[in-house]
Amino acid sequence: MLRFDWARWRTLTAGERNTVAQEAESVLGKLEQGKTSASAIFSLLGHKGDLMLLHYRASFAELKSAELQVAALRLWDFAAPVNSYLSVVELGLYDSSVKTYQELVARGIAPHSPEWQGEIHAVLERQREAMRTRLYPEIPPSRYLCFYPMDRKRDENKNFYTLPIEERQRQMHDHGMVGRRYAGEVKQVITGSIGFDDWEWGVDLFADDPLVFKKLIYEMRFDQVSAEYALFGSFFVGVRVPAMKLGELLSGKLPALPR
Amino acid sequence: MLRFDWARWRTLTAGERNTVAQEAESVLGKLEQGKTSASAIFSLLGHKGDLMLLHYRASFAELKSAELQVAALRLWDFAAPVNSYLSVVELGLYDSSVKTYQELVARGIAPHSPEWQGEIHAVLERQREAMRTRLYPEIPPSRYLCFYPMDRKRDENKNFYTLPIEERQRQMHDHGMVGRRYAGEVKQVITGSIGFDDWEWGVDLFADDPLVFKKLIYEMRFDQVSAEYALFGSFFVGVRVPAMKLGELLSGKLPALPR
Amino acid sequence: MLRFDWARWRTLTAGERNTVAQEAESVLGKLEQGKTSASAIFSLLGHKGDLMLLHYRASFAELKSAELQVAALRLWDFAAPVNSYLSVVELGLYDSSVKTYQELVARGIAPHSPEWQGEIHAVLERQREAMRTRLYPEIPPSRYLCFYPMDRKRDENKNFYTLPIEERQRQMHDHGMVGRRYAGEVKQVITGSIGFDDWEWGVDLFADDPLVFKKLIYEMRFDQVSAEYALFGSFFVGVRVPAMKLGELLSGKLPALPR
Amino acid sequence: MLRFDWARWRTLTAGERNTVAQEAESVLGKLEQGKTSASAIFSLLGHKGDLMLLHYRASFAELKSAELQVAALRLWDFAAPVNSYLSVVELGLYDSSVKTYQELVARGIAPHSPEWQGEIHAVLERQREAMRTRLYPEIPPSRYLCFYPMDRKRDENKNFYTLPIEERQRQMHDHGMVGRRYAGEVKQVITGSIGFDDWEWGVDLFADDPLVFKKLIYEMRFDQVSAEYALFGSFFVGVRVPAMKLGELLSGKLPALPR
Amino acid sequence: MLRFDWARWRTLTAGERNTVAQEAESVLGKLEQGKTSASAIFSLLGHKGDLMLLHYRASFAELKSAELQVAALRLWDFAAPVNSYLSVVELGLYDSSVKTYQELVARGIAPHSPEWQGEIHAVLERQREAMRTRLYPEIPPSRYLCFYPMDRKRDENKNFYTLPIEERQRQMHDHGMVGRRYAGEVKQVITGSIGFDDWEWGVDLFADDPLVFKKLIYEMRFDQVSAEYALFGSFFVGVRVPAMKLGELLSGKLPALPR
Repeated sequence: MLRFDWARWRTLTAGERNTVAQEAESVLGKLEQGKTSASAIFSLLGHKGDLMLLHYRASFAELKSAELQVAALRLWDFAAPVNSYLSVVELGLYDSSVKTYQELVARGIAPHSPEWQGEIHAVLERQREAMRTRLYPEIPPSRYLCFYPMDRKRDENKNFYTLPIEERQRQMHDHGMVGRRYAGEVKQVITGSIGFDDWEWGVDLFADDPLVFKKLIYEMRFDQVSAEYALFGSFFVGVRVPAMKLGELLSGKLPALPR
Repeated sequence: MLRFDWARWRTLTAGERNTVAQEAESVLGKLEQGKTSASAIFSLLGHKGDLMLLHYRASFAELKSAELQVAALRLWDFAAPVNSYLSVVELGLYDSSVKTYQELVARGIAPHSPEWQGEIHAVLERQREAMRTRLYPEIPPSRYLCFYPMDRKRDENKNFYTLPIEERQRQMHDHGMVGRRYAGEVKQVITGSIGFDDWEWGVDLFADDPLVFKKLIYEMRFDQVSAEYALFGSFFVGVRVPAMKLGELLSGKLPALPR
Repeated sequence: MLRFDWARWRTLTAGERNTVAQEAESVLGKLEQGKTSASAIFSLLGHKGDLMLLHYRASFAELKSAELQVAALRLWDFAAPVNSYLSVVELGLYDSSVKTYQELVARGIAPHSPEWQGEIHAVLERQREAMRTRLYPEIPPSRYLCFYPMDRKRDENKNFYTLPIEERQRQMHDHGMVGRRYAGEVKQVITGSIGFDDWEWGVDLFADDPLVFKKLIYEMRFDQVSAEYALFGSFFVGVRVPAMKLGELLSGKLPALPR
Repeated sequence: MLRFDWARWRTLTAGERNTVAQEAESVLGKLEQGKTSASAIFSLLGHKGDLMLLHYRASFAELKSAELQVAALRLWDFAAPVNSYLSVVELGLYDSSVKTYQELVARGIAPHSPEWQGEIHAVLERQREAMRTRLYPEIPPSRYLCFYPMDRKRDENKNFYTLPIEERQRQMHDHGMVGRRYAGEVKQVITGSIGFDDWEWGVDLFADDPLVFKKLIYEMRFDQVSAEYALFGSFFVGVRVPAMKLGELLSGKLPALPR
Repeated sequence: MLRFDWARWRTLTAGERNTVAQEAESVLGKLEQGKTSASAIFSLLGHKGDLMLLHYRASFAELKSAELQVAALRLWDFAAPVNSYLSVVELGLYDSSVKTYQELVARGIAPHSPEWQGEIHAVLERQREAMRTRLYPEIPPSRYLCFYPMDRKRDENKNFYTLPIEERQRQMHDHGMVGRRYAGEVKQVITGSIGFDDWEWGVDLFADDPLVFKKLIYEMRFDQVSAEYALFGSFFVGVRVPAMKLGELLSGKLPALPR
């Protein structure tokens, strides 16, 4: 998330602004073209930033390279980074994990034994292959984005991490059923950030009608795993801006999304 | 909420200040004219900002356009955005929701079934039509504004989101009765921001006597849903300034409100 | 509370500094003259600010006008507002409130009925008249000020707002008895800020010996209402500086207080 | 605590840097000479500041004067105040207080009666006289300083302020015994800041081997009053720099401490 | 952790940038050469900083000297320190400590008696010698670093510091077993910071595949000492940049790690 310095921007001549915007449109336009390794620009609402750049990449080195490429733009002279979030796409695998663990236990394989590790590894490889498109998603073309990070509580009595896996599986299943009812209206990308950033998960929601973000999250707030165990960070809402229309945005006009 | 840079402002000549103020008066004056899609300016008390802009709009795209229009003012060169709040007007519908749910259950309709969803959708549509003026309110012409965001607690034992809906309905009803006693003195606009901003609700109070803000909120603090379940963010108090008097304010004089 | 930019201040010539200081002395000197509508300047200790301006005013509009008058000073070019607190003087009326409520109940008057509201209103009017000097206090001429904001806790088990009024009355009475023992050494002005600022109350203590602040607040920390229910914000300690000696302060010398 | 602007500092010529450093060495050198009213300079580790000034003074007015004297240095143009702590030296008097209270009670003297107050006052006066060197300590000549502020908890169940004084005395006694085992290696100065700053106490530890700070505080963390009732603020660690070697430090070299 | 000012950097000519980068490469290159007293540079992901400098040193004075050496670089004119962490390498010695304490108790030696202290001192000396390479580690040559600080909870019921040492030993043992399963993929350096910085421990993880950070920390979150007693600060992830490739990084290209 970047804050844009409108005052300094206006000290440029129209020609200079044009040159700076065209460079940014060209570079960001190319980053936008990738499929599973693409970037997208959003115009944020409110004071938390003017622009939000979303970079989906296959590795942290590629991600850092994208950051460096953007910092090299002359546009960056007018942009101050005020926030960011680092995470990797994560699939909800409670059902399959519980099933796998139960099978291994039933077969008498000791947890963490070489055989156990080998079986788990094989299952994960099969899943990675089968779910490749969900693990490396494209950025949905929706007009609005809602991003927020979250944790599961570890309070004295309500501690998600001390619940048995079957109970976590049950709660996450109920939680997922709410999301499923909104499948046609909202596209969710759940990412995990334990070890990478200050919250445990990051949630990207994409929709053409932003009111759906509120309906979905409000309804979820009453399911057990959210009501009792969820902690939320800041919420960020942005409007998608095609890279080629960045100049239009910087001239003070919210570009329409081509359909 | 914006902080105004008085020192830089004073580096302008009187003529330049006049030009900048007139542009702002003209643009903000037009934004002020809308009925259900209007803006208003407030002069904030204290260090939390000098100006507060209130934008009521029908969509997030229109809201972002208003932000861009304001950022395009030369006045913006002297203003730093320090806070904001993004939310949508929300009506308290516990009574009607509980009634609707009870009727549907009594008629044997399964929750979340297509029939259930259809009935809920029809009820919401009828309400939206009937309450259009409350959903798209005009900004009251009062002299003072009090804004604050709030949450309902999700603590280990006191968790609003795990209460049965009938209990939440009862507590919200009692809470509403306090507000009703102040109906003649305070105009409330309640907005929901789950999924949009860092708190769950935003409250706008409008009054000609700001002492009433304190009386109302103090009295409410003792009703059960506030005493046990409310969490409050920062409070912002401002004095309404008509757009056409912005220049007067920027010359260091608090304009009177035309009556 | 303002941070003063000593480095920029020193870029002025001695003559310019004199002009800026004299303007500030003159304007602040007039604001200082009011009785119940006066301002005072304090030199703060530590990094939380260099100057603290205390404005006692009869209305928020007058308060905002005072803020604008100060922001119009050339001195303001060297001052950054870093903190503030907005509140109204409040008298501790538990004893009289409980007595009034009990009488009304004894007379069979229903709470919140028009008759009840009329009686309460009449009592408050009589009190306001009788306590006018306490409601509109002058700023004591003491050398030191201690300011801090505070809340009453609303925790899961310790919740001040769910205690019966008689219990709150009893605890506040004991609390007041501690303060009374310091009456000769400390002048207290208690203000309420529910609906106005981020804490529920603001406390101004005035004394000629600042050690008394610590003794008083330490002793109070053991009375029940403080030990169990008080939450404290930041503490600010300042030395009174007469407006006419502001130039002396800005030349790097702490002025003596005329006696 | 001050952040030093190395970039701006390097814009000066060597001669200018010399002049600025010599002025600071001279003024701070004099402040350093006092015995019980002295100042000391530390070079802080990490990003929390580059310099820390420690001012021991007999009154807040003298302290403010020291602050103003430092702010008047040309060196101050390169220094931004980022933190501070205001407190007074405090002696642990639980043992003597409990003894005094018990004696007064045994003699039938009513708490807070004039006689009680007189006796307490007399005891305090005798103590102040007897402990003058501990109340007005010199700054130890050790190479390292560790400073941190702390509170005693007032949680719902673990509330230090609701414990009987005899229990607090017992816990503080055990706590003190740990400190006593480090007496030869660490010099502690405990200060009280209730009513003065945002935490209740400030702790200055002085040692020639900074590892001892960790050993002492780690061992203390297991005594009851720390394990159950202590809350800690930020920790600051600095290396003592004699005033006359400030120029050496500002040339990028950590000066040795003369022995 | 440093934020790099790309906009100011670009105001330099290519030649000036080259000179500044070469000076930094030369100085940091030397600091990089030490074995147990070395520094390393990481390019951070996200907005928490652009660069992270890791300094392993034998004393705080040497550490401060390293800080001063870096602040003296012309590169520092483009770098703002935004974070830091001060700590010392710490070995997990629960097993040996419990064994030693039990032996001393069995031999009838009173805790904290001179004999006890002497025995403990002798054991620690033997351990320090035996574990010299772990106490003074080299910086691993891995491509990725994950750093985070952490605390053990001291809540009302879940308080790590009131558990018996045998229970802490047991939990830490289980915790260590998880880490051991990742020994081939992650190198951990645990440091203690009680008395030095704002959290109790700092954790450095080094790996060539950063996904392993997430796997390890996620798995650990379910062991008892983490699930119930761990509090985490911010997480920082960086890519190693050899000092001699700093100029390449500052030209906007992420350098490869020589293998």
